[in-house]
Amino acid sequence: MRTAAFDELMEAPIVGAPLSGGPSTPELAAAVSEAGGFGFIAAGYKTADDVRDEVEDVRGRTLRPFGVNLFVPTRAAADDAALAAYRESLAGEAERYGVEPGRPHWNDDEWERKLALVERERPSVVSFTFGCPDASVVARLRDVGIGVWCTVTRPTEAKLAAAAGADAIVVQGAEAGGHQASFDDTDAAPIGLLALLQLVRRVTELPLVAAGGIANGRGVAGAIAAGAFAAQIGTGLMLTPEAGTSSAHREALAGDAPTALTRAFTGRRARGIVNRFMLEHDAAAPRGYPYVHHVTSPIRAAARAVGDGGGINLWAGQAYELAEALPAAILVARWADETRRARP
Amino acid sequence: MRTAAFDELMEAPIVGAPLSGGPSTPELAAAVSEAGGFGFIAAGYKTADDVRDEVEDVRGRTLRPFGVNLFVPTRAAADDAALAAYRESLAGEAERYGVEPGRPHWNDDEWERKLALVERERPSVVSFTFGCPDASVVARLRDVGIGVWCTVTRPTEAKLAAAAGADAIVVQGAEAGGHQASFDDTDAAPIGLLALLQLVRRVTELPLVAAGGIANGRGVAGAIAAGAFAAQIGTGLMLTPEAGTSSAHREALAGDAPTALTRAFTGRRARGIVNRFMLEHDAAAPRGYPYVHHVTSPIRAAARAVGDGGGINLWAGQAYELAEALPAAILVARWADETRRARP
Repeated sequence: MRTAAFDELMEAPIVGAPLSGGPSTPELAAAVSEAGGFGFIAAGYKTADDVRDEVEDVRGRTLRPFGVNLFVPTRAAADDAALAAYRESLAGEAERYGVEPGRPHWNDDEWERKLALVERERPSVVSFTFGCPDASVVARLRDVGIGVWCTVTRPTEAKLAAAAGADAIVVQGAEAGGHQASFDDTDAAPIGLLALLQLVRRVTELPLVAAGGIANGRGVAGAIAAGAFAAQIGTGLMLTPEAGTSSAHREALAGDAPTALTRAFTGRRARGIVNRFMLEHDAAAPRGYPYVHHVTSPIRAAARAVGDGGGINLWAGQAYELAEALPAAILVARWADETRRARP
Repeated sequence: MRTAAFDELMEAPIVGAPLSGGPSTPELAAAVSEAGGFGFIAAGYKTADDVRDEVEDVRGRTLRPFGVNLFVPTRAAADDAALAAYRESLAGEAERYGVEPGRPHWNDDEWERKLALVERERPSVVSFTFGCPDASVVARLRDVGIGVWCTVTRPTEAKLAAAAGADAIVVQGAEAGGHQASFDDTDAAPIGLLALLQLVRRVTELPLVAAGGIANGRGVAGAIAAGAFAAQIGTGLMLTPEAGTSSAHREALAGDAPTALTRAFTGRRARGIVNRFMLEHDAAAPRGYPYVHHVTSPIRAAARAVGDGGGINLWAGQAYELAEALPAAILVARWADETRRARP
């Protein structure tokens, strides 16, 4: 079965980024697709059953194509003593919010069940974060007509994705909010989007989706002129009414504090607005995803419940100050129009 | 006297970045301008007399407009004990190359003499790095027909530059090689170019020159579609025969090692290719420009003289792998053509 051509997926070159941990909702994915963009369901952290419900929900809202994003399970060596010490160092946070820190443990985010689910449900595209599955998995999905996109942060990762048979490469620049989607979690300096698009283009002719720090039509136009076929916008959609962004997170996105990369919340580098938790724990946070994610999860949930932006991961890309609290349909239409006008 | 309009300065939207410390030469500036771009003399670290000679040299090679870049003297508090300790920690480096580390001291890079020089010589543009001079200095230059460009790394700096009366803003992204041109040397996460262009555009309507990680025509086209009127290319010109890039530096630029920001060489954050000196001294390097620059200067000069790339500052932007060893005229013409073709 053939996978869809890109002009069948979207009328405007705008992809709604998958935003795991709350912001992505079926309403948001459907609104982006209905507006002529390409919406995503974020499967990360959810059960396969919940993802199935979301797929059904989106299909009840739109007949347009959409995608599902999966986290590739990674099994990096983690230092048990460092994880235990970090958990210990969070005792004050736990006490502050009246919870216990979580137990550091590994899981695969229901990888096989989610793969089976998408194979059955056949969204138009499945994109991957934290790696690219091997060629046999890519072939399984493509065989049933699913386009496979792999997210990369370096040219070497793009080469691996191309070799695995991906249909397109999501090129994630250093500017991006949330996790750096690197295959391994290293300390290598993340590369800015405009440069990264050129470096990736040297190693593959695959279509590129540009991600990171794009939140208006001029940004989309810039990415396309630089060689991408579409831009993936995440933070720019986080203030829409369709997004599940928490109220404390919305408040922070309306401010102007700087962003930084940190492992304090999940054990993997991710970009968020600098807040109390990040300042107090960044230096002590060990590498170790998803172990650290599970340790901080109860603390973050409790902080979120009381609306305390100082205790939660305020993921945001470097252009977050451009985000606007307008319906996704209005934003996508405006960005599409700005993009057209920026390309004389 | 009016300052020149931008289409009088250049036919192609390509600025040859000022590259202090060796790579910029009168030959390179003239070649870029002759090819229809806009070349720069890098006055930083040089005496005013040497800069005058370079201006004359460029004028002997081309009738086209060109610019001169000046470092704005900054007087950040430096910790004497930390500087002394860092100097001490470089004893092994000094011994390795048979020199003494330099004495940590401050100077203003002949600021007043250079200002007087450009006022007299009247290049078409004077651009500034590490700050924007106050409104009276900007007015002095503009009064004699010199266009004033200030380099910024954050929207707040762009506001200051606009308030001082600058004609244009050079927007330097995190991707850039060499020093981050920030007004103050902080630890704030540097912002990727595509996002920064949008954030700066929110605070000023001045023309923007995009800098950082651009080294081909697709990059130029991306920056222009994103709202810049031209792109400033530095590293992409460092392998040209006209550049004064050292042989060890050329060798490193032909490789594929990662880049990183470091204070190890000058006491101010700058991006270079990761090498032995950076790995061994980055962690210990204090903030303190130009003090640290003077401490490491004899070591770097000696390492350069023996062609040892492990002991010198290998400034390079994140797209350095795109740099090609071709004459500047050929590169500028090709980039101009690629830029036109990327903008249908």
